[in-house]
Amino acid sequence: MKFICEKQKLQEGISISSKAITGKTTMPILEGIYITATKEGLTLIGSDMDVSIETKVEANVLEEGMLVIDSKIFGEIIRKLPNSQIIIETLENEIMQITCEKSVFNLVYMNGEDYPEIPKINENLSVEVQQSILKSMIRGTSFAIAQDETRPILQGILFEVKDKNLNLVALDGYRLAIRNEFLDNDSNIEVVIPGKTLNEVSRILEDVSEIVKITFTNNHILFNLSNTKIISRLLDGKFVNYSSLLPQEHKISIDVKKQNLQNCIERASLMAKDSNSNLIKLDVQDDTLVITSNSQLGKVREEVSVNLQGESIQIAFNSRYLLDVLKNIEDDEVVLEMTSGVSPCVIKCKNNDNSKYLVLPVRLLR
Amino acid sequence: MKFICEKQKLQEGISISSKAITGKTTMPILEGIYITATKEGLTLIGSDMDVSIETKVEANVLEEGMLVIDSKIFGEIIRKLPNSQIIIETLENEIMQITCEKSVFNLVYMNGEDYPEIPKINENLSVEVQQSILKSMIRGTSFAIAQDETRPILQGILFEVKDKNLNLVALDGYRLAIRNEFLDNDSNIEVVIPGKTLNEVSRILEDVSEIVKITFTNNHILFNLSNTKIISRLLDGKFVNYSSLLPQEHKISIDVKKQNLQNCIERASLMAKDSNSNLIKLDVQDDTLVITSNSQLGKVREEVSVNLQGESIQIAFNSRYLLDVLKNIEDDEVVLEMTSGVSPCVIKCKNNDNSKYLVLPVRLLR
Repeated sequence: MKFICEKQKLQEGISISSKAITGKTTMPILEGIYITATKEGLTLIGSDMDVSIETKVEANVLEEGMLVIDSKIFGEIIRKLPNSQIIIETLENEIMQITCEKSVFNLVYMNGEDYPEIPKINENLSVEVQQSILKSMIRGTSFAIAQDETRPILQGILFEVKDKNLNLVALDGYRLAIRNEFLDNDSNIEVVIPGKTLNEVSRILEDVSEIVKITFTNNHILFNLSNTKIISRLLDGKFVNYSSLLPQEHKISIDVKKQNLQNCIERASLMAKDSNSNLIKLDVQDDTLVITSNSQLGKVREEVSVNLQGESIQIAFNSRYLLDVLKNIEDDEVVLEMTSGVSPCVIKCKNNDNSKYLVLPVRLLR
Repeated sequence: MKFICEKQKLQEGISISSKAITGKTTMPILEGIYITATKEGLTLIGSDMDVSIETKVEANVLEEGMLVIDSKIFGEIIRKLPNSQIIIETLENEIMQITCEKSVFNLVYMNGEDYPEIPKINENLSVEVQQSILKSMIRGTSFAIAQDETRPILQGILFEVKDKNLNLVALDGYRLAIRNEFLDNDSNIEVVIPGKTLNEVSRILEDVSEIVKITFTNNHILFNLSNTKIISRLLDGKFVNYSSLLPQEHKISIDVKKQNLQNCIERASLMAKDSNSNLIKLDVQDDTLVITSNSQLGKVREEVSVNLQGESIQIAFNSRYLLDVLKNIEDDEVVLEMTSGVSPCVIKCKNNDNSKYLVLPVRLLR
C-alpha cells in the first residue's frame, strides 16, 4: 500500500471515522482504523460493531492495499505533523511508514484481513433530509432519551416516517420530546435508533442545507452524507405508542418569552439543588408567573410576565426537565398548555409547529 | 449590613477572593467569603489559612456590617443574576437577602466574628515589580517545582533579591529554572513561597505594566495589587544553593529556532510515551540535529537545522523536561550549551539574558 495525501484531509478523515471507535470493545482490532487504498481512492473505517463510520479521503493511491492501524497513535501523529503532504507506505514486517517533510515514523500495523465485516445495506427503502434539519431534530429530542437501562427501547429515538412526515420521538418516564418535518415521501417506516448512534450522527452532521440520505433494513440504518457513511444497528422491540400520551385538550394556556422563563428557572434551581428532585413551584395569576423554591440553603422568588388564558394555576416541576426543554426549543416565545396541577404540561413553540414537548409535574403533598 | 453594587463588579470580586478557597479545610467557615461593609467600602476575603486573598469592590454601603457567606452558592447566584444593580442586606435570623430586578434570594449566613484572623503585614521591607513581568517570571519557573513531597522546600519557588536583581528559582532533582530581572532596590531577601500560592498569584496578575508591591516578614509575604491583596505564609527552611549547580563552562553550543525544535520533540515524544522516561535521543553533527525515539509502538526520526559550535554530540533526555523549558521560553531562538552526553545541558534564550534552564540528560547503557 502506498498513497500521498494532504495532512489536513487525512486528519479530518481520522477524526470522523474515530468517532465510532469507543475503546470499550474486547476486540483489539476495533481500536484501529481500517484503511483501504484502491484505484477508487482512500477509505477509512472505524467501528465498535454497533456503529460503523466510513469516510473517503482525497488521496493519490500509488499502490493498492489495506491495513488496520491504532487510531489513537495514528491520529496523534498526523495531528502533530506539519501542514504538508504526507506519504504513507507499507514496508516489510508489517511496518507502516509515515513521511512528512523531515519527519519519519515507523509503526507496526494490524492485518486488514482480520477486520470484521461491516454490514452491507441494500439501498432500497430510503428517505432524504437536509443535514441542518436532521441535526436540529436530533438535538431537539435526544435529551429526553431514558438514562436507565430497565427499558432498553427507551434508550433509543423513534424514527418514524408516516403521512408524509418524519417524526423523531424520545421519552423517559417523566418527559416526552417530539420533533417533526414534512417529507415528500410516502413510505411507512418505524425504527428505533440507539441514542449513542444519533449523538455521533449529529456531531458529524453540519449546519448546511446539503442532503443526507437515510436507508433502512430490518436490522440496520445507513446515514449517507457526501463523503461519509454511518451504519448503525437498530434497537429490537416496539416503541411506546407516544401519541396516546399526549393530552387531547387543555384548560390553561400560558405564553411567555422563552429566555426570560429560562433565566428565572435557572436561578430558582440554584436553591433546589440539594434536594434530588430539583423542585420548583410555579404560581400563575393575572399575567404574572411567580417561581419559588426553597431548601436548606435558603429560598428564592422569581417573577416573569406572561400572557395567561384560563384560570390561575399552581404547579410544581423538576426544574431540570423544564430547562432541558427550554434550552432545546428554537423559538423566542413558548406556549405552556396545562389543565391542572397534577396533569401533564405540554410545551410548544409559539411561532412554529415542528416541536412538541410534554413534562409531568411533581405532585405536592398538601 | 446593607449595600448596593453592580453585578459585574461583585462577580469579579467573588471570583478573585474565591481563588484562595480550596475546600480542603476542616473549618466550614473557610468555605465562605468574609464580607465587610464599612464607610471605606466593601471588602471580600477568601482564605485557606495558608493563602488569603482580600479584594475591594466598589459599592454604596448604606449600613455597615460583616458576615460570612458560602462562596459557592453565593458565586453561582450572583453569576446568574441579570447585569444590573444588586442590593444585599441582612434580615432577622441570620438571613442575607439578595435582590436584583425581580429576583429575590434569602440565604442563611455565618457570623463574621467567627472568621479567623488574617495575618497583619507590617509594610516595611518591600520591593516593586511590574505585574506583567512578575506573571511571566512565575510562569517561566513554576513548572520546575518538585512534585514529590519528600523535600517540601522544593515545592516552593525561591524569591531572591540580591545585587539589584530579583531572581525566581525552582528546581526538582532533574531540572532547574531561573528567571531574573533588574530591580532598583538594595535589599537582600531570600524567601521560599509555596508553588500553590504563586500559581494563584499569577492567575490574578494581569499582563499590564502596573506595579505590584511585594512586602516581606519572617513568616509571610504580601502581594499588593491596586484593589487586591494576597497574603501567603512562607515555607520553612533553606533553599538549595542553586548557583553551585550551574556548570562554569561548556564545550558545545547549539543555536536553534525554538519552535522547530519544540515541534520535532513533541512528535518524537509520541513514540516515547509508553515508557515512563519519555526517552528521546539527540544526535548533533554538522549543523543537523537528529532526534530519534523508539518503543513498542514503533520508531520515529526527526531532523532540525541548527548552528553547531564545538564537536558533535549524542545525548538523551526525558522529552517532557525539554518541552517544559521550550514552552516557557519567551524567545524565537534558543541556545543549548553542553559538554558531554552525561553532563547537564543549559538552555538559554539567544536574544535575552533573563532566563536560564538546566536539564539533566538520561544516561544510556551502551
